[in-house]
Amino acid sequence: MTYVLASDNWSGAHPEVLDALIAANAGEEMSYGRDRYTARLQDIIRSHFGPRAEAFPVFNGTGANVVALQSMQPSWGGVICASSAHVNTDEGGAPERVAGLKMLPAATTDGKLTPRHVRELARDFGNVHHAQPSVVSITQSTELGTLYTPDEIADIADLAHGYGMSVHLDGARLANAAAALDVPLSALTTDLGVDVVSLGGTKNGLLFGELVVVLDPARSVGIGYIRKYTMQLASKMRYISAQFIALLEGDLWLRGAHHANAQAALLRSLVEDVPGLTITQPTQANAVFAILPPAIDDAVRRIAEFQTWNSVTGEVRWMCSHETDDATVRGFAAALHELSAGLIAGC
Amino acid sequence: MTYVLASDNWSGAHPEVLDALIAANAGEEMSYGRDRYTARLQDIIRSHFGPRAEAFPVFNGTGANVVALQSMQPSWGGVICASSAHVNTDEGGAPERVAGLKMLPAATTDGKLTPRHVRELARDFGNVHHAQPSVVSITQSTELGTLYTPDEIADIADLAHGYGMSVHLDGARLANAAAALDVPLSALTTDLGVDVVSLGGTKNGLLFGELVVVLDPARSVGIGYIRKYTMQLASKMRYISAQFIALLEGDLWLRGAHHANAQAALLRSLVEDVPGLTITQPTQANAVFAILPPAIDDAVRRIAEFQTWNSVTGEVRWMCSHETDDATVRGFAAALHELSAGLIAGC
Amino acid sequence: MTYVLASDNWSGAHPEVLDALIAANAGEEMSYGRDRYTARLQDIIRSHFGPRAEAFPVFNGTGANVVALQSMQPSWGGVICASSAHVNTDEGGAPERVAGLKMLPAATTDGKLTPRHVRELARDFGNVHHAQPSVVSITQSTELGTLYTPDEIADIADLAHGYGMSVHLDGARLANAAAALDVPLSALTTDLGVDVVSLGGTKNGLLFGELVVVLDPARSVGIGYIRKYTMQLASKMRYISAQFIALLEGDLWLRGAHHANAQAALLRSLVEDVPGLTITQPTQANAVFAILPPAIDDAVRRIAEFQTWNSVTGEVRWMCSHETDDATVRGFAAALHELSAGLIAGC
Amino acid sequence: MTYVLASDNWSGAHPEVLDALIAANAGEEMSYGRDRYTARLQDIIRSHFGPRAEAFPVFNGTGANVVALQSMQPSWGGVICASSAHVNTDEGGAPERVAGLKMLPAATTDGKLTPRHVRELARDFGNVHHAQPSVVSITQSTELGTLYTPDEIADIADLAHGYGMSVHLDGARLANAAAALDVPLSALTTDLGVDVVSLGGTKNGLLFGELVVVLDPARSVGIGYIRKYTMQLASKMRYISAQFIALLEGDLWLRGAHHANAQAALLRSLVEDVPGLTITQPTQANAVFAILPPAIDDAVRRIAEFQTWNSVTGEVRWMCSHETDDATVRGFAAALHELSAGLIAGC
Repeated sequence: MTYVLASDNWSGAHPEVLDALIAANAGEEMSYGRDRYTARLQDIIRSHFGPRAEAFPVFNGTGANVVALQSMQPSWGGVICASSAHVNTDEGGAPERVAGLKMLPAATTDGKLTPRHVRELARDFGNVHHAQPSVVSITQSTELGTLYTPDEIADIADLAHGYGMSVHLDGARLANAAAALDVPLSALTTDLGVDVVSLGGTKNGLLFGELVVVLDPARSVGIGYIRKYTMQLASKMRYISAQFIALLEGDLWLRGAHHANAQAALLRSLVEDVPGLTITQPTQANAVFAILPPAIDDAVRRIAEFQTWNSVTGEVRWMCSHETDDATVRGFAAALHELSAGLIAGC
Repeated sequence: MTYVLASDNWSGAHPEVLDALIAANAGEEMSYGRDRYTARLQDIIRSHFGPRAEAFPVFNGTGANVVALQSMQPSWGGVICASSAHVNTDEGGAPERVAGLKMLPAATTDGKLTPRHVRELARDFGNVHHAQPSVVSITQSTELGTLYTPDEIADIADLAHGYGMSVHLDGARLANAAAALDVPLSALTTDLGVDVVSLGGTKNGLLFGELVVVLDPARSVGIGYIRKYTMQLASKMRYISAQFIALLEGDLWLRGAHHANAQAALLRSLVEDVPGLTITQPTQANAVFAILPPAIDDAVRRIAEFQTWNSVTGEVRWMCSHETDDATVRGFAAALHELSAGLIAGC
Repeated sequence: MTYVLASDNWSGAHPEVLDALIAANAGEEMSYGRDRYTARLQDIIRSHFGPRAEAFPVFNGTGANVVALQSMQPSWGGVICASSAHVNTDEGGAPERVAGLKMLPAATTDGKLTPRHVRELARDFGNVHHAQPSVVSITQSTELGTLYTPDEIADIADLAHGYGMSVHLDGARLANAAAALDVPLSALTTDLGVDVVSLGGTKNGLLFGELVVVLDPARSVGIGYIRKYTMQLASKMRYISAQFIALLEGDLWLRGAHHANAQAALLRSLVEDVPGLTITQPTQANAVFAILPPAIDDAVRRIAEFQTWNSVTGEVRWMCSHETDDATVRGFAAALHELSAGLIAGC
Repeated sequence: MTYVLASDNWSGAHPEVLDALIAANAGEEMSYGRDRYTARLQDIIRSHFGPRAEAFPVFNGTGANVVALQSMQPSWGGVICASSAHVNTDEGGAPERVAGLKMLPAATTDGKLTPRHVRELARDFGNVHHAQPSVVSITQSTELGTLYTPDEIADIADLAHGYGMSVHLDGARLANAAAALDVPLSALTTDLGVDVVSLGGTKNGLLFGELVVVLDPARSVGIGYIRKYTMQLASKMRYISAQFIALLEGDLWLRGAHHANAQAALLRSLVEDVPGLTITQPTQANAVFAILPPAIDDAVRRIAEFQTWNSVTGEVRWMCSHETDDATVRGFAAALHELSAGLIAGC
């Protein structure tokens, strides 16, 4: 038996999403975003993010982040972010190579930027020798499964705007954050001064597709051109938009996120008393981070799929999705306890 | 009534493709191409393109071309192509902006490179002042609906290899070419010395998805890295691969292409005697190019959707797809005749 | 004896330029352009180009062109130019690779863009699939030794501005044009609506150094940042500025250009009656283009240094500089006649 | 009276360098590096760096670093460096924007990478989601005026090579390091396994000009093309090469460096007992880093030119060059003491 806690992108799509895709297949539709589904998606996005919001469907999360960030700054800009941010570490250098962006990373322990980080990096304005800090990019929920409170986001946004910088939010898992904090999407974004959001779809139960949601049109320039030349413009865009309609029209986005979060909380509660196991991060969204007892580390890896987060410390990540069921969580937790007990018995 | 002859990307997906997508949704699959569908796709690709072929699924055609071309040359390379090539004119500058490629375009009348073009542009080798010609990129079928014969491709490939250059084939509509020429895919590619193919899926009846098919692994370097940082790596890759399996495992790819070609031929036969209408290109695949009689130009545009190819000459393009039905073709042709006759009557 | 007619960059610097360099060496100066020489240069530039002009010293001509062009357009722009333009053919792909520019080249016979070329290429505005034509770049004198008349430049500038595009002038040899047309520099640039000039120094008698001269500040954005990150910002900028002061403060720029032009005219007059020799371009500045009689082609190459312009036709370029003396011109011309006569005698 | 301790690029050139420039001006020379001076420079470089070394003259230090680093890695590479490295912080993002490089910075206190830093960052090999660590770049002497011992460099080089990475040394001030450690240039580079060096000229008494010195030709690919398209190829290269000949043929490079180092040591010895002044770095080359007593900070800035290194802590940098004389050093030190005493007296 293999327990899969590898990533929310190992999961399939919601059946409702698939149904929407099938329904969208009938007949011809104009290409490159002039279809009826994309038009209707805009209404739904505005209902979530406010009347100025506009959605730009793209293929994947890397694309959403790079398209968003490039539209938000001149060619001499720099992006303040946590050093653990996906855009800094997990995109193969796409921001630098595709868009010529300079990342200005801050070391954090929990994946969260603070005003102090921003103040330290927001410098050298007007000095041509230095990349000009132009955007602060935060991730909600973070790559470490932690959450910003709304106040923390508002503080960063106010600070950034005070420097003349814009605010980008990587929301590949924004649904998980909204579910955990029990607030609407706008309460984590539009209402706090976030300017542009990368809104995740794939990890929230789509087959593929993400959105760049521009909240303040004055802070994003040329995104239509940028999306095209960075190769993120879908010809049959209806298939992305129809999926997002299914996700966002009702509460499907929220149900899946609630489930994933609950499973992570359950997992944590079931394993945190495994002798020698260390939980390394607060479990605030849909991921549990831990360091396994060295004696059972190998054995655990043989019975489950999950990611080694830090090859130096051995920290691992267990990720839950809209599909992660009780059998997986309870089975895996039980197996950990058994392996641990067997070890003790074997001594 | 609006007749749609706009583009093969206005069409939906084959029902068999949708079925395959639904079937692929069950359960968890490893992400980023380590899934079982992508593995199986490799076997099918080898059955079409030979034992050395390897497929790299990507999101769209621009992505396929740029990933392919960047993997085929150093950062100081140049790409010989027809000036009308999609990669030169229709990708918003993606090759230049994303990959720093220098295009070396040759003016053609029919979208086809000839050995003479290649000889004129294959120069300045070793001279640092000039982009080094490294790849010859041809399109089959071309953007103008014309075809290279296998001998023509072989001549270009031999010539290119003789200069030390590699050969890329943009096959967004390769299926249409194979159908028209009644040959297998390998007879237009592997057997002739083509090194890397961009194999179209979207225009051949998928929801989305293209393949970079590497035929000679020695002529493509680092494609895995390049695909990632150019933002063309799908996390849930199973959904691209499953569609291509449905397309390529049997003859679905060929049936759709045959149909599209046949409808274009039918359309041409029905309209070429409209008084004053000029057919501007041979109709060898699934597109008809024409210049309308000026007197009915406006009226025709009101009853149909199609692309103005050249705003200077007024040349238009009528494109057929796997979905284009007889009612559309016959109806549109009849309408042209009626408009023309009415005009005459009105005189 | 070897006659050198290879390039104006084979020549040394004017003695007055060297003297200025020596004088500028005394004591400390602020770096990166805050020195007193660069400040003084601005006054001189304004005296030539008008009160809004500002000079940005850079290292070389490729740098001047790329810095200028990148500052004049968004990242989705395109540059209309003659296919023979230096920026299109002789800079190793720098515009594409360093700045992501898309070149939109027009085929010409004499290196000169016409309004017709501009009209054909100024299209697809607002269409994300196409690079957006943003700048028209012309070269004066051209790479083929020909000249635009002031009226021709004015027509192109008016046309470009009418489309919302800006006008760049590659003036690596602008001094030769001004000398030939007997007009001040402003009469070929500022007065005609040119927005940004690459003003050549190296080919006009400097050791190194070029200027980007911004004539309309509203059409160049971020040039200070761009110059830095494209690696064209000199730390000890005084040494570029002091040379330009020597060149432009008096008439040194004009004397050298007059001399070079006169030597080219002399050369042409002395060789055009060599039997079988074809002059291929008007001789309007400091270059003579010709096709040698095949029978003496090899022999001529053994006694002189010059550039083969077109390896297909055998066309060659003989370039004169501020240093090209009568002995070289008359000696080379006499040698051509002798070789030609010897050949005839030898028959 | 203003004391100038701002930067070694505020100084002029050595008179011997100027003399060499003047001598090099006579007559015509082949362009783009085919001149006799550049040929002779190669011999001199080999005498310093060993028989495999080859020098590629470029314009400035940013250019040297970016040309070197781009030639040393594929387009998916990453560069491990100290976060304070010039290439990471002071080049306006040139590595990212011009070459698409991903920097992998390590936080250090003294500007020196250690094997531990390299081990932490040398990870994820073969994982397409991460920039592939390809080059370790160190600076000698560092941006903080500190030195690597030869053993420290050898350890890093061995470690890097063991991972399959290459080693770049930013030697904008390598002469100062060699002078301080009393070793030849090869003893800090070739002998220790360094693969490519950026060898500074401008800060060591040239008017302009740096060299990329390739020590292991197998670890640098395409540098001729890269130098051209990154706009670092001088047409009249003789003027760079002649300066370097003057610098490196005898011991001019060493005399200037010794002088600069000695003046920094003198300055430190004269100011370290100023009450309340904190020296923040070891003074091992030609720079002194300090935090001024807050009470005299403003007054000191009014009488001298120097750089604020860290606007948060107030740390400043006093830099000595080949031209910094005793009057400046002793005068500035005396002024610090006077200001400090006056302050005490004033209490």
